[in-house]
Amino acid sequence: MPRFLKKRSHKAGLPPGTIVPSESAGTRDDVKVFVMDYNEAQFQERETEKVEECFPYKDSDTVTWINVDGIHDVDVLQKLGTHFGMHPLSLEDVASTGQRPKLEDFESYLLIILNMIDYDSVKGEITSEQISIVVTNGSVISFQERRGDVFEGIRERIRTAKGRIRKMGSDYLAYALLDSIVDNYFVVLEKLGEKIEAMEDKVVSDPSPKVLQEIHHLKGETLFLRKSVWPLRELTSNLERTESSLIKESTSAYLRDLYGHTIQVMETIDTFREIIGGMRDTYLSSISNRMNEVMKVLTIIATIFIPITFVAGIYGMNFSSEASPWNMPELGWRYGYVGALAVMAAIAIGMLVYFRKKQWL
Amino acid sequence: MPRFLKKRSHKAGLPPGTIVPSESAGTRDDVKVFVMDYNEAQFQERETEKVEECFPYKDSDTVTWINVDGIHDVDVLQKLGTHFGMHPLSLEDVASTGQRPKLEDFESYLLIILNMIDYDSVKGEITSEQISIVVTNGSVISFQERRGDVFEGIRERIRTAKGRIRKMGSDYLAYALLDSIVDNYFVVLEKLGEKIEAMEDKVVSDPSPKVLQEIHHLKGETLFLRKSVWPLRELTSNLERTESSLIKESTSAYLRDLYGHTIQVMETIDTFREIIGGMRDTYLSSISNRMNEVMKVLTIIATIFIPITFVAGIYGMNFSSEASPWNMPELGWRYGYVGALAVMAAIAIGMLVYFRKKQWL
Amino acid sequence: MPRFLKKRSHKAGLPPGTIVPSESAGTRDDVKVFVMDYNEAQFQERETEKVEECFPYKDSDTVTWINVDGIHDVDVLQKLGTHFGMHPLSLEDVASTGQRPKLEDFESYLLIILNMIDYDSVKGEITSEQISIVVTNGSVISFQERRGDVFEGIRERIRTAKGRIRKMGSDYLAYALLDSIVDNYFVVLEKLGEKIEAMEDKVVSDPSPKVLQEIHHLKGETLFLRKSVWPLRELTSNLERTESSLIKESTSAYLRDLYGHTIQVMETIDTFREIIGGMRDTYLSSISNRMNEVMKVLTIIATIFIPITFVAGIYGMNFSSEASPWNMPELGWRYGYVGALAVMAAIAIGMLVYFRKKQWL
Amino acid sequence: MPRFLKKRSHKAGLPPGTIVPSESAGTRDDVKVFVMDYNEAQFQERETEKVEECFPYKDSDTVTWINVDGIHDVDVLQKLGTHFGMHPLSLEDVASTGQRPKLEDFESYLLIILNMIDYDSVKGEITSEQISIVVTNGSVISFQERRGDVFEGIRERIRTAKGRIRKMGSDYLAYALLDSIVDNYFVVLEKLGEKIEAMEDKVVSDPSPKVLQEIHHLKGETLFLRKSVWPLRELTSNLERTESSLIKESTSAYLRDLYGHTIQVMETIDTFREIIGGMRDTYLSSISNRMNEVMKVLTIIATIFIPITFVAGIYGMNFSSEASPWNMPELGWRYGYVGALAVMAAIAIGMLVYFRKKQWL
Amino acid sequence: MPRFLKKRSHKAGLPPGTIVPSESAGTRDDVKVFVMDYNEAQFQERETEKVEECFPYKDSDTVTWINVDGIHDVDVLQKLGTHFGMHPLSLEDVASTGQRPKLEDFESYLLIILNMIDYDSVKGEITSEQISIVVTNGSVISFQERRGDVFEGIRERIRTAKGRIRKMGSDYLAYALLDSIVDNYFVVLEKLGEKIEAMEDKVVSDPSPKVLQEIHHLKGETLFLRKSVWPLRELTSNLERTESSLIKESTSAYLRDLYGHTIQVMETIDTFREIIGGMRDTYLSSISNRMNEVMKVLTIIATIFIPITFVAGIYGMNFSSEASPWNMPELGWRYGYVGALAVMAAIAIGMLVYFRKKQWL
Repeated sequence: MPRFLKKRSHKAGLPPGTIVPSESAGTRDDVKVFVMDYNEAQFQERETEKVEECFPYKDSDTVTWINVDGIHDVDVLQKLGTHFGMHPLSLEDVASTGQRPKLEDFESYLLIILNMIDYDSVKGEITSEQISIVVTNGSVISFQERRGDVFEGIRERIRTAKGRIRKMGSDYLAYALLDSIVDNYFVVLEKLGEKIEAMEDKVVSDPSPKVLQEIHHLKGETLFLRKSVWPLRELTSNLERTESSLIKESTSAYLRDLYGHTIQVMETIDTFREIIGGMRDTYLSSISNRMNEVMKVLTIIATIFIPITFVAGIYGMNFSSEASPWNMPELGWRYGYVGALAVMAAIAIGMLVYFRKKQWL
Repeated sequence: MPRFLKKRSHKAGLPPGTIVPSESAGTRDDVKVFVMDYNEAQFQERETEKVEECFPYKDSDTVTWINVDGIHDVDVLQKLGTHFGMHPLSLEDVASTGQRPKLEDFESYLLIILNMIDYDSVKGEITSEQISIVVTNGSVISFQERRGDVFEGIRERIRTAKGRIRKMGSDYLAYALLDSIVDNYFVVLEKLGEKIEAMEDKVVSDPSPKVLQEIHHLKGETLFLRKSVWPLRELTSNLERTESSLIKESTSAYLRDLYGHTIQVMETIDTFREIIGGMRDTYLSSISNRMNEVMKVLTIIATIFIPITFVAGIYGMNFSSEASPWNMPELGWRYGYVGALAVMAAIAIGMLVYFRKKQWL
Repeated sequence: MPRFLKKRSHKAGLPPGTIVPSESAGTRDDVKVFVMDYNEAQFQERETEKVEECFPYKDSDTVTWINVDGIHDVDVLQKLGTHFGMHPLSLEDVASTGQRPKLEDFESYLLIILNMIDYDSVKGEITSEQISIVVTNGSVISFQERRGDVFEGIRERIRTAKGRIRKMGSDYLAYALLDSIVDNYFVVLEKLGEKIEAMEDKVVSDPSPKVLQEIHHLKGETLFLRKSVWPLRELTSNLERTESSLIKESTSAYLRDLYGHTIQVMETIDTFREIIGGMRDTYLSSISNRMNEVMKVLTIIATIFIPITFVAGIYGMNFSSEASPWNMPELGWRYGYVGALAVMAAIAIGMLVYFRKKQWL
Repeated sequence: MPRFLKKRSHKAGLPPGTIVPSESAGTRDDVKVFVMDYNEAQFQERETEKVEECFPYKDSDTVTWINVDGIHDVDVLQKLGTHFGMHPLSLEDVASTGQRPKLEDFESYLLIILNMIDYDSVKGEITSEQISIVVTNGSVISFQERRGDVFEGIRERIRTAKGRIRKMGSDYLAYALLDSIVDNYFVVLEKLGEKIEAMEDKVVSDPSPKVLQEIHHLKGETLFLRKSVWPLRELTSNLERTESSLIKESTSAYLRDLYGHTIQVMETIDTFREIIGGMRDTYLSSISNRMNEVMKVLTIIATIFIPITFVAGIYGMNFSSEASPWNMPELGWRYGYVGALAVMAAIAIGMLVYFRKKQWL
Repeated sequence: MPRFLKKRSHKAGLPPGTIVPSESAGTRDDVKVFVMDYNEAQFQERETEKVEECFPYKDSDTVTWINVDGIHDVDVLQKLGTHFGMHPLSLEDVASTGQRPKLEDFESYLLIILNMIDYDSVKGEITSEQISIVVTNGSVISFQERRGDVFEGIRERIRTAKGRIRKMGSDYLAYALLDSIVDNYFVVLEKLGEKIEAMEDKVVSDPSPKVLQEIHHLKGETLFLRKSVWPLRELTSNLERTESSLIKESTSAYLRDLYGHTIQVMETIDTFREIIGGMRDTYLSSISNRMNEVMKVLTIIATIFIPITFVAGIYGMNFSSEASPWNMPELGWRYGYVGALAVMAAIAIGMLVYFRKKQWL
């Protein structure tokens, strides 16, 4: 579970507000900056060469969405931060991964940091990427660790003017981004749910140590998710109740809805935890049942043979019947051998009857 | 436990407020719309062909109850929503199942979403249906996933003007609907309670692995109920303390009563959980007791025979008494054989006495 | 534990406020109504034939205590309720058993519902009876499920004008009733405590399955008590902090004291739960210790004899010493037999020494 | 653990405010009343014959500390209570032991009830004594169950005018008493801590059932302490935040400090609980490890001998080689016996190699 | 785990406010006092011979940081305390180790007490040192138990005027100290995380009792950390929300950030606890699996040989075929011996087939 131990960008000893890009912050390809600028009437979209190209949009009446893929270019962050009036601590937070999801209100802008998760079906693991959203009056800047996100639907809605997104402001755009991210939690939860269901059968039908390891893996994934979502709940709750003037009245119903979804994600995760905990118990009692069954049948077999082997031992003794007629006269009887066999059979059957009566068989 | 993993209507990527009827939202028969319209003096009841037929009732002085069975016809929802001034997000919530119970106050109306549960005695499972109640000034609209509900008593009381329902407004009607639903939780809890009581005897008398599976099933049902009721408690608490002008002063005592009932449901479920947890412990220690008993008796039998089989083995040795008088002289003794048997009996009896003294028998 | 599953008076489908007497609500003998009327100077006590006889007391300056034994006569409840101006929901609550303890403030009166518990030393079970107390200005009406209560001391104090009860109002009387009930919880807790102490010795000295059942029984009793007391704590806390004009300033110190006692009951119950949980652990480890001891001693015995039985087996083989001098020459040795016995003894003693060294003996 | 079940002074049925001295409230020797009276300039100390002797001090300008050893003389309590204007419920609380620690504000005085604990190194048990402190303007009255306390240091400081106690008022004196009591909790915790440390080694080196009993004893002591300290935390927190005019501004920093110490006591107890819980786990897994080791070695020995005993059994059979050359020709071979022994040795060694390879040895 | 039981400086019986240096409070070398004095323009740094040398800095306009290494010289503490107007209780807190982390607001100064932790890689243990920070208007005094700290980076930033520290006031300096300490928690957590990861593999590959001990050790370290950090969370939360005029508006964003980091430390520790708890479970089920495997294979071997040894026993009996043709005729058959061996082989193979079918092999 090395993911829990993810290194924070090391900053001990550095002055606060120093931008230290995370070592794991994306590959070394260039940082990409995409701009979408729109209002109800018009729409424009471009990938900029230089980050300065997107500065003019700041003061337009339109809503501007600047999306930055890659947070390891200190220069880009610095320029953007300066132009949009961001606090040095905000830039430091954006640049360093492994942050706790949070909402901070800097009056002129809101900083939202959270994790965008996805399910890597090849590794069978949940992957997580830190995303920072800066909401100003008229602009939204989103910083992603690397390319690839869950916002394609939003881009399409902006392009095609579908839904009400083109009629709303930057706060609605920020909500739409958050909503996409939370919706994707449901997608991941469904995948996890399918794995859990599949595991539930295995636990009863084939309780091997490998199954226990898979249960532990599932538990780890759930723990990981929970750690991500727990502060997210706080974040959305704060966002709903924020008194920032950046969030308009008309958006609050949507934010309340978002909060409800986050609660639902949380509750589903807790249900998963309970189910996985139950599976572990089922596994252990399956294992223990099997072992008990093995021990019981085997011990019964052993116990039947021990007394009759003793009888055979008796008549294997070499007491001399010549020395005394008291010595092992059975050996000379006509039906001695048959009788001995009969006695053995009687003992064995008696044992079996006794075990059956005690319901051990 | 696939019910926990119930698919939400998939909406990732769609704009918020889009009505996406749940795939599992009822069979494909027509959506039915029933209208009851009443005040203290008069009463009218009809099933409408077209949803538009119930629009005129909106502005009458009477209380109007519109009940919609089936939420998969987007057209019906859209028309009703538009006519009664509902927010797009509300319609989306009504249409998509798997919602978390909630109360939302949209000033001109209250939206209440909760689960109506029932006990399917054939499958031995608790079934759940999402029901959405919209309370406006003078009207109540209830949306059910499918036909069949727990409101027949209310309809009868409206028809026969029994109780005070005909004298009260739409808020009392909404309360009556909620009260019926919560009352049905008690009915389901009683059924569950009977199953738990029956199981309690089985656990002691016949602790088979099947019993453990049934305990797990009961635990799952309780978990499922708890997940439904937990937000219901919040809902009724909010309803009791709401400052909405739609809820009149005279109804608040009833709502406080409703809240009390929800708490009682919650506490009964928690008691069930404790009892079921205790049964699991009892089961495990019954199993372990039985196994211990088996092992103990069998081991004792084995242990008695091992030493005496050894004695028999001694006298089965072939040392030649001809070679030396030191070799196995017992074999030639007059009472050698009888003596050997006596020694064996003495060992066996000594063992039994020892075990008895140690209270292992 | 059927008591947990106590049936609520079935009301699903009936209009709220309908009085449905509980089926188990006392035997069918007549409902008894006792009246005590007093102030500092005078005192009167009577058993009424008809409930109407106690109506005149309502408007007197004296404090009136009307005690109703039996809540299954709807007529009596209805008349009292109407005369004292009770809300229909209050009457429904009084009549139906299985209610959650609660305090409701209806401005003109307070309704207090709680459980009066007692210890049935014959069945060894805690019994519970619902008691409803209505406090108005100048009157207290108490409804009991059946005859027999813990109020005899209060009646005696009223009759003999002992203490300050005759000088105080109806709120103090209500406090006195509650105080008697909570005091009786201590009596029951002491009985339960004695049983727990007795059990603690048994668990160590004689850990039989019957003991485990008794532990489970005690656990059930504690769970039952806890379920009763938990809402009682809330009730007394609310009563202490109530702003109702029915509770005078002078009574508040007493109510604070009452609240303290309820907390103490709660904490004692929680301590009992911890002790009982510990006893279960002690039981399980006693059982496991005994089993381990059995297995250990028996296995050691078996293990000593297995190698020496093997030696005996060796010399029971029939290799022909005639065919070859290499075949079992020991059989012809002068001290062969004695030597073989000596070898066996050496092995056995060696084993014992080894076990002793390993501290397995 | 009979201490948990300590009898409250039985009062069920008696009017509230009746002083019922606890049966266990000290021996029957006379109740002692000591008075210390001081201000910055002067100091006086005496043991009174009659309780009335300390009444004059009440109205002096000096601070008066009246310490009452023994609470079983109703007369003394009554007189003191009347003279200092105490509420009857306060006197009842002072007289009856087994009270829950609490702070009550009666405007003209504060009543503080708490437990003074000590460690009885003979019995190895924590002892507890109820102490009630009444703080009025200018006086402190402390009631102890019996002689012997932790206040000697305070008396010395008053006598020698060391520290600031002689310069401060009655509230500081009350604080000093509470501080002494809480400080003694640390002393007891250190003794308990030493026992826990000693036990930690024993659990690994010598896990006998006696050790388990000692662990249970320690757990009981910790539970007992926790039950005492939990309400103490509440008490000191309330005292710190009290708005009573009896507590001066200058004392509040001291009370905050006191509260901090109580929290620290609480946290240390919780840490002890965790450590003791961990020791129990260590004990159980030590026991289980030992048992497993026993079983493993013994079973291995048995398993090696079982196959080779079988081989010996084969050659102990009496098939007649005269009847047929096919019958047991090995018996007549030159190296038959040696060969048989070699086969047995080979089997035994093979087994050992297999076990070693499987890491069972 | 003796660190949990760390002795508080013993003060029972002493007047509050007495400075009692902890016995373990550093070695007996001289207490060192370092002063740094700076503003944006100038900077001065010196180690003082006498504590009085740093008094003049108090009233300068510059920010003064007085760092005291060693808290066992009562004289130094007294002088500093008097000069900077500290309350006697504050000095007592600074001098006595084993304090609970806390923030106290004395209007003219803030007292912050917390633990600076470090990882001693030689002992493999987390070490802890109490550090007290006094923040006045224009000065920060830090008291450490001994030399060596995590503040070197801050000193360097002050010297080189790097970052904004030289431009800010004493509140920012205090923040910087706290930030360094909290940052070092992350460093220690990473070391702990590495040990946990290493342990996770060991638990599966080599579950020896030593591993269990190491798990317990890790659990103890985590418990220790948690006990340190829990009150730290409260401290930083209070600091963030403090209304003290000593904390300027401009520093509050930094304090919010600090609080966020503390929460993150807390959550990482809780995750570690869950992982360690899971490792313990994995260890126990690994052990149990191994034992089950041993028992199973060995029991199977035993069980196969028991019946065939019985067969060998049968033909070792000495019934006389001369006395009767019914006696053991098999002994004289041509293929008697071969047949007997065949029967034994058949039994053994049958057993193996049965076990394989039951999936016990």
